[in-house]
Amino acid sequence: MTKITIQDIKTYLLQLQQDICASLEELDGVARFATDEWQRPEGGGGITKVIQNGRVFEKGGVNFSHVHGLLPDILKSETRSARYFHATGVSIVIHPVNPYVPIIHMNVRYFCMSEEEDGPVQDEWFGGGIDMSPAYPNETDTRHLHQLLKNACDTYHADAYQQYKKWCDEYFTIVHRREMRGVGGIFYDHLRPDSEAKKTVLFAFMQAVGNSFIPVYQPIVQRNETRSYDLRQKNWQYIRRGRYAEFNLVYDRGTHFGLKTNGRIESILMSLPPEAAWKYDYHPEAGSEEADTLPFFQPIDWF
Amino acid sequence: MTKITIQDIKTYLLQLQQDICASLEELDGVARFATDEWQRPEGGGGITKVIQNGRVFEKGGVNFSHVHGLLPDILKSETRSARYFHATGVSIVIHPVNPYVPIIHMNVRYFCMSEEEDGPVQDEWFGGGIDMSPAYPNETDTRHLHQLLKNACDTYHADAYQQYKKWCDEYFTIVHRREMRGVGGIFYDHLRPDSEAKKTVLFAFMQAVGNSFIPVYQPIVQRNETRSYDLRQKNWQYIRRGRYAEFNLVYDRGTHFGLKTNGRIESILMSLPPEAAWKYDYHPEAGSEEADTLPFFQPIDWF
Repeated sequence: MTKITIQDIKTYLLQLQQDICASLEELDGVARFATDEWQRPEGGGGITKVIQNGRVFEKGGVNFSHVHGLLPDILKSETRSARYFHATGVSIVIHPVNPYVPIIHMNVRYFCMSEEEDGPVQDEWFGGGIDMSPAYPNETDTRHLHQLLKNACDTYHADAYQQYKKWCDEYFTIVHRREMRGVGGIFYDHLRPDSEAKKTVLFAFMQAVGNSFIPVYQPIVQRNETRSYDLRQKNWQYIRRGRYAEFNLVYDRGTHFGLKTNGRIESILMSLPPEAAWKYDYHPEAGSEEADTLPFFQPIDWF
Repeated sequence: MTKITIQDIKTYLLQLQQDICASLEELDGVARFATDEWQRPEGGGGITKVIQNGRVFEKGGVNFSHVHGLLPDILKSETRSARYFHATGVSIVIHPVNPYVPIIHMNVRYFCMSEEEDGPVQDEWFGGGIDMSPAYPNETDTRHLHQLLKNACDTYHADAYQQYKKWCDEYFTIVHRREMRGVGGIFYDHLRPDSEAKKTVLFAFMQAVGNSFIPVYQPIVQRNETRSYDLRQKNWQYIRRGRYAEFNLVYDRGTHFGLKTNGRIESILMSLPPEAAWKYDYHPEAGSEEADTLPFFQPIDWF
């Protein structure tokens, strides 16, 4: 068996970024991704790809990064004697124009640590997930999301979907509002290979998740992008986007990790919505289309 | 000398809330504050007053609260053997319609702790401040703000303004952006009276700050509320409001304290802007009205 190297993982991630951007550009039909390459002063850097003011996508980022160097303090408790790290991943957040097209988020990442710079790996793990935050969730789209994520998880092991679905429900909760950011999906972290064989399996799982992004999102975009809406739906979208910003700024570990390790601010905060709203003590009218969405923002068993 | 009681402080704060709401309603001329009284399950409660969709004020809150009971964990490190607390204060955040009228924020508060419920006070302090976050800061308004805050501080002691102005510059910094949320003002915390005489002085200082809110804000609103603007200024206002939300959700201790002590979410988050925007890697064009604002978001010595 060939050993999986960080170079193999990077090669996959860079290709994934290309493929996803190409598919999203095709879906949009008008806007193109702009590319910013950046360097991290302490080591490494990234390629940020951003689409803005499209026909379908109001603002979205498909970001690759590979940062490395001395371990930041924020990670030290996790790592015993390790002093150096590598972290590489692809992060996606897409904010569509049409309130009936959901926000989608994906992240797949790999971390490793070593005592010497680029020395033998002492500790390593995979993490990631895909989750969706529609303003107007519906059962068809949500089942489709969960079915494809279950399929990806089943390639890894039989309990993976149930575990990572639950983890996602818990992680993407806006604790102070007692509601989820969206309709969930899967979330996993610290999947540590204890052998080369296991590393191959975990890398294959990363690919199963990454490769399901377009099959998950494309039909959902196509089914909803021409639905008509007016100011009322746009207002509800802005309120749900406000909740999205609230979660990301108050709770998201990835955001905090980036802000505290001198990450590239604009790449980290590309996740924030192009426009968002906060109304005081707003509750949708009972029986309205908006009120009907609320049960979706609580954990639901789809299978 | 009569001893200052928490009842004296509450009486002042409730009157301040009334007076400020009356002045803001007069300035707006159209919208009125709506009142929500709320109870905290663990003890105490508050009176939230919110104005929305006014002629001058798009969204604003003038909130009184007095919460008490068992000390929350988040405060335990500060307090030795104390087990019970009272906290009372007035918090204001005003988001005006016109991009030339600044967001203003005020908070004045008093905390005390005791070993027995409502027993002898073991530790107590005053905190507060006023600061302003214009989208288009100008020198006249900023000098007026700082002059009136200096006058209020001078009634307390000669170094107070310099100290609390510096504290404000530091506190209201969006660390990851290396810029201030606005043009500063004053911020102070943990001013502990070591005698009844000192408590009288600190209560007088709370009143000097609270009473300067309207003299600070009224002329600034009146000078700017009829200035003409279009989509361009509105867009810049939305971006600066995005920074405001970023600070409050990532860094503000008061917000985090509220979210983590089962505070009333809608009263805490009334500080968030009615609408805000995040554009990817946006930089105002060199020489533009917007670019000219940027130096104001760094510490400046006004005297």
